[in-house]
Amino acid sequence: MVTVCVDAMGGDESSDVVLEGIHQALVSDPELQVLVAGLPEVVEPFCATHARTQPLVCTQTISMEEHPATAVRTKRDSSIVCSCRAVKDGRAQGFFSAGSTGAIFTAATLEIGRIRTIKRPAIAYAVPGLSGKKTVFLDLGANADARPATLVQFAYMGRAYARNILHVKDPSVALLSNGTEPTKGSEAVIAAHKALVEAGPWFSGNCESSDILAGKVDVVVTDGFTGNVVLKMIEGTVKYLYTQLKGQAAQNIGYAVGLSLAKGALKRIAVDLSGEEQGGAMLLGLKAPVLIGHGSTSVAAIKHGTLACAHAIRSNLASKIASDLVRES
Amino acid sequence: MVTVCVDAMGGDESSDVVLEGIHQALVSDPELQVLVAGLPEVVEPFCATHARTQPLVCTQTISMEEHPATAVRTKRDSSIVCSCRAVKDGRAQGFFSAGSTGAIFTAATLEIGRIRTIKRPAIAYAVPGLSGKKTVFLDLGANADARPATLVQFAYMGRAYARNILHVKDPSVALLSNGTEPTKGSEAVIAAHKALVEAGPWFSGNCESSDILAGKVDVVVTDGFTGNVVLKMIEGTVKYLYTQLKGQAAQNIGYAVGLSLAKGALKRIAVDLSGEEQGGAMLLGLKAPVLIGHGSTSVAAIKHGTLACAHAIRSNLASKIASDLVRES
Repeated sequence: MVTVCVDAMGGDESSDVVLEGIHQALVSDPELQVLVAGLPEVVEPFCATHARTQPLVCTQTISMEEHPATAVRTKRDSSIVCSCRAVKDGRAQGFFSAGSTGAIFTAATLEIGRIRTIKRPAIAYAVPGLSGKKTVFLDLGANADARPATLVQFAYMGRAYARNILHVKDPSVALLSNGTEPTKGSEAVIAAHKALVEAGPWFSGNCESSDILAGKVDVVVTDGFTGNVVLKMIEGTVKYLYTQLKGQAAQNIGYAVGLSLAKGALKRIAVDLSGEEQGGAMLLGLKAPVLIGHGSTSVAAIKHGTLACAHAIRSNLASKIASDLVRES
Repeated sequence: MVTVCVDAMGGDESSDVVLEGIHQALVSDPELQVLVAGLPEVVEPFCATHARTQPLVCTQTISMEEHPATAVRTKRDSSIVCSCRAVKDGRAQGFFSAGSTGAIFTAATLEIGRIRTIKRPAIAYAVPGLSGKKTVFLDLGANADARPATLVQFAYMGRAYARNILHVKDPSVALLSNGTEPTKGSEAVIAAHKALVEAGPWFSGNCESSDILAGKVDVVVTDGFTGNVVLKMIEGTVKYLYTQLKGQAAQNIGYAVGLSLAKGALKRIAVDLSGEEQGGAMLLGLKAPVLIGHGSTSVAAIKHGTLACAHAIRSNLASKIASDLVRES
């Protein structure tokens, strides 16, 4: 049995969507217990009617629009802060929320805490590639600037994720740059390249952003500024293509028929990219697994996020990152 | 009459494609003269049979794989270096090549030279947006690192491009960041935000990468590292979606019919994004217009690139950038 704390108040949709997602996760995983965090009127009726659940009652919520650090500091009884405290106190072994990334990151770092040797936790996402293979991509926004030593730690954490969650043997790590040559990149990237060469034989050199979705690399590391900009560019391009296709379908009956026939394929791709089936982005470097729901909230996304968090707990990801760091550095 | 120098040796395809593109540009624009740069066996027969052309004979070529600075330094009789020298000497008023971006940038900066007050020339591309509106996006790779003062100059140059080539009145400029708040971004981006606020009322604040294809902003500035990574991510995502759609079509007859019907729409979008119809990316900050063909070379791309270069010459873009800088700074 593992216990995942799930934030019933997080996400774009109503908490009914989150609760239904939790319900489906419980049905699918009989070894799962859920600590359901939220306002009493939301979580108490649900837990009263669901086995293997417990309410974690709180009085506040943090919205997507609030300033993360301020919200975490002032709303000590919010579902996000209470959840992280519950993980710290051992009432749950991991946390999943589809709420504000910044608030989850701040609260988790403060309450759950970093693995001792990790300087900066990072946000990682396993991007589905063309080859059917996933690429672990980090950092996606936790650290706008990252020194060479920090990027080396990202590499260790990304390798641990690829090994333990995606079951890749001896994962290779590439550094995102604007060209494959070691001399390419900003001053910070060129310095990081040198540090990674020294870090280990698993460093495969620079890669370009177009390689990420090609499924050519196991792990790609970058600073949180670049990672965030790249991730949003993937989303923006998908939206652009879909809207353009719809616009052209409106002008041409052949295109319209084509688009309606191809809709299933497009939806399948959107689901792959949104991470609905893999549950979301993972905070790496903390003492317990924390998952952030990515994309617009849906019942399936909440279900898969909860299950993915349970999987990370069972994989002992946090302690494996810690032992990898000791071994590799 | 304007004279554009076109590199007959540049591009992925044979020089026949380039020559056919030049031919079509000459047919479409009766006020155009072309100085055709290349090996004698390529350019001399073509010029002998085409009015309004002159050969610019050279003995060397620079390939896509060569190190740009080394190639420009050692191959003084290459088509790229000879073309830039011809612009400097007044034999042509602008240059278009589908060759190596790095080599064109280096040779043009050295031979044609910068506008006096411009510290760092930049590569700009007018990205087609969802609203039908184009967004001038720079720098795309000329300057991996860019100080705040450099980004302010990029803003002036981007505004001049939007005003004179895209005919936008008083263009607004946004700074690419990982969030819209002024506090978001790397240290360099936060400092650039402050400098841009002071630079002028046309600064609309930070934008996110997903805004670029949405067609919401007139000009987006960023350092060349980020710009290059973002541009390649758009290309990578388009390729990903297209390949995934084809893969799914292979498994499902409905999808296959859909995809073949929607193919025209997909091709239309690919042409929009590739810049085939707008000719390519523009070097800004030099004393004469230089255009770099973007995407795989085609007859249409060469034709449009040559015409776009002639248009930039007629718009007096270079001298307008110079006078804007004096007025705005």
